[in-house]
Amino acid sequence: MTGAHGAHGVHEAGTQPAGPRPDLPVPDHQSRRDRLRADLAGAGVDLLLVTAPANVRWLSGFSGSNGQVLIGPEPGVDLLVTDGRYEHRAAVEAAGLPLALTRAPLEIALAACERGQRLGVEAVHLAWADATDWVEQGETAGVEVRPTRALVERRRVVKDDAEIARLARACALTVEALEWLFAEVVAVGRSERDLATALERRFVDLGADGVAFASIVASGPNAAVPHHAPSDRRLQVGDVLTVDCGALVDGYHADCTRTVALGHLDDRLREVYAAVEAAQAAGRAAAVAGARAGDVDAACREHLTAAGYGDRFVHGTGHGVGLDIHEAPAVGKGSPATLAPATALTVEPGVYLPGVGGVRIEDTIVVTADGPPTILTTAPRALRVLS
Amino acid sequence: MTGAHGAHGVHEAGTQPAGPRPDLPVPDHQSRRDRLRADLAGAGVDLLLVTAPANVRWLSGFSGSNGQVLIGPEPGVDLLVTDGRYEHRAAVEAAGLPLALTRAPLEIALAACERGQRLGVEAVHLAWADATDWVEQGETAGVEVRPTRALVERRRVVKDDAEIARLARACALTVEALEWLFAEVVAVGRSERDLATALERRFVDLGADGVAFASIVASGPNAAVPHHAPSDRRLQVGDVLTVDCGALVDGYHADCTRTVALGHLDDRLREVYAAVEAAQAAGRAAAVAGARAGDVDAACREHLTAAGYGDRFVHGTGHGVGLDIHEAPAVGKGSPATLAPATALTVEPGVYLPGVGGVRIEDTIVVTADGPPTILTTAPRALRVLS
Repeated sequence: MTGAHGAHGVHEAGTQPAGPRPDLPVPDHQSRRDRLRADLAGAGVDLLLVTAPANVRWLSGFSGSNGQVLIGPEPGVDLLVTDGRYEHRAAVEAAGLPLALTRAPLEIALAACERGQRLGVEAVHLAWADATDWVEQGETAGVEVRPTRALVERRRVVKDDAEIARLARACALTVEALEWLFAEVVAVGRSERDLATALERRFVDLGADGVAFASIVASGPNAAVPHHAPSDRRLQVGDVLTVDCGALVDGYHADCTRTVALGHLDDRLREVYAAVEAAQAAGRAAAVAGARAGDVDAACREHLTAAGYGDRFVHGTGHGVGLDIHEAPAVGKGSPATLAPATALTVEPGVYLPGVGGVRIEDTIVVTADGPPTILTTAPRALRVLS
Repeated sequence: MTGAHGAHGVHEAGTQPAGPRPDLPVPDHQSRRDRLRADLAGAGVDLLLVTAPANVRWLSGFSGSNGQVLIGPEPGVDLLVTDGRYEHRAAVEAAGLPLALTRAPLEIALAACERGQRLGVEAVHLAWADATDWVEQGETAGVEVRPTRALVERRRVVKDDAEIARLARACALTVEALEWLFAEVVAVGRSERDLATALERRFVDLGADGVAFASIVASGPNAAVPHHAPSDRRLQVGDVLTVDCGALVDGYHADCTRTVALGHLDDRLREVYAAVEAAQAAGRAAAVAGARAGDVDAACREHLTAAGYGDRFVHGTGHGVGLDIHEAPAVGKGSPATLAPATALTVEPGVYLPGVGGVRIEDTIVVTADGPPTILTTAPRALRVLS
């Protein structure tokens, strides 16, 4: 894998195709850049140099591992910066956006500034070492390099139609693969690792570009570990089996968890299942426009606390999801974000009994203008005991 | 996929098992921490809070997506910080290192400092926004939070036996899968994407934990694009086919490229092949202990320039490789690093003729104490014209 001169790149994992997707609605990157442009003055900057890969992709369509987008005061200033390895991909994916090929994006950005202007950078993503250098180079050029926080991420919370179509496709593939797994593959004697491999291959065979994250396949006592990595443990009669997985489609991440039982389920875990199922329904019902993200967490948490499992729900209720698997808004205790229509998020309460097992149920949902959210992961939620 | 309260995590892609690998030599993380500890005084700090995931893994064995390692003036101060999702994994992977479960690693680090001490942080990885907050919190605690650059990365350049064993395993799997691909799968009519999927599945079937990076499968004119993403283009007679790929084993990345021809190869590309093959051999021969990394680049580049292709070799010659696919040392024009024994790097010159095709040949090698490097990717390099 080639690196540019003196560079240590970061690479996408898995097979991701480049280029437009004729089978999905065309994203309007220009409109996204214009919406962001409207935020610059309020953030105290004249231009913004965007460096986080998911933000670059959202603003331009470019999916390579090294790219930056400059947003100017007027659209004519906007451009995409990458290096020679990605010249072709940039031309295909970000057609219509002028392209600068260089490993020195700051120089390009400073050249686009007039003396006395303020150039915003992404302080949440830019390394301290680079920031120190960039502030200094800005001073030399008579440009103030200023930190900004989450300007693009805030705009990305509300999804446009092209994004929802991609999330919906990713979630539909995920559900199809997961149901196939439960129907055709899950059986006593199979290992967690076998299941993870079969599931992830099914994603790709069904048309996904890859996996959204390393699948969690946790059986029996391993289901008490929220982020268990698939092991060689083989399924046994009486196990619970938690599968947390997602397909990736054109950069968009699905996220879905189901827990099933093998052969039979003891009364204690059956009670846990019922509590989690009800809590998850309560959380989904709370995800309405105008509510706080923290209200969704509270709905799940109050239900589980009332059922006596409050201290066994050891993580947040969910997170925004889109071009990143975890993005704004956070959905935890007291999360302050007000939910707007077209916000995509997960609702995933879980209860974990160390040494015994656990149950987690998760959906990816989209907040609607009025009424309950749209559920993108439509796999059944009622307890299933597989034979 | 659960996120902790209010957190936006970053996840590993692909299926990666947790826990020790009884089939591979046990890494001595304590020794690595002690070697790093010896560097602290020279860097002007008393303690170091390590936040880059690959650095955390190198120092502790912990492979989760959220973890930090604190290195103290004495071994008794060292600890691993993660959150509740990873309690079990941390206990298994980083056995013997005290564990702190919190989402606020700086607080733990400051509590370990005495007033007036200097706490180093990784300025190349810590976000500017966090750095600003951390410096302020340090001031409140009477601790100076100071930037350090690449302290762990410099130590990671020279691989220990446990690392070389993992790289060797990853490279052996890569060669086995690549040779299988050329022998059993490559054929006129197959798409680039089919080949990439088959290859990546073979890695896992042979025992890899996943892929080191998104495979590059580039045929015909696409082979003129150094970082081409696999497309639906189908192989034709007369194509060159470049495959750049690597398996992942216990966190270690293989990196290997071979270019073959289908049916026949025209004289122009045959000449290019011969030039790249000779340049790559010259680059490998230059990778001896005591040479500069830039000498390896120069050896390749001078050869290709003499052959008339200097301006068609549009990237650096290689890069260090290990827990990151691209790590120190850089191997490009004038790269200053002096090669020490047990340094792992790639040598991957290429020549690209837009619209026509291209040739790249790449090996992962390890510098030896005296004599030529050990070549970990042993696939044949002589031109192969597949029928």
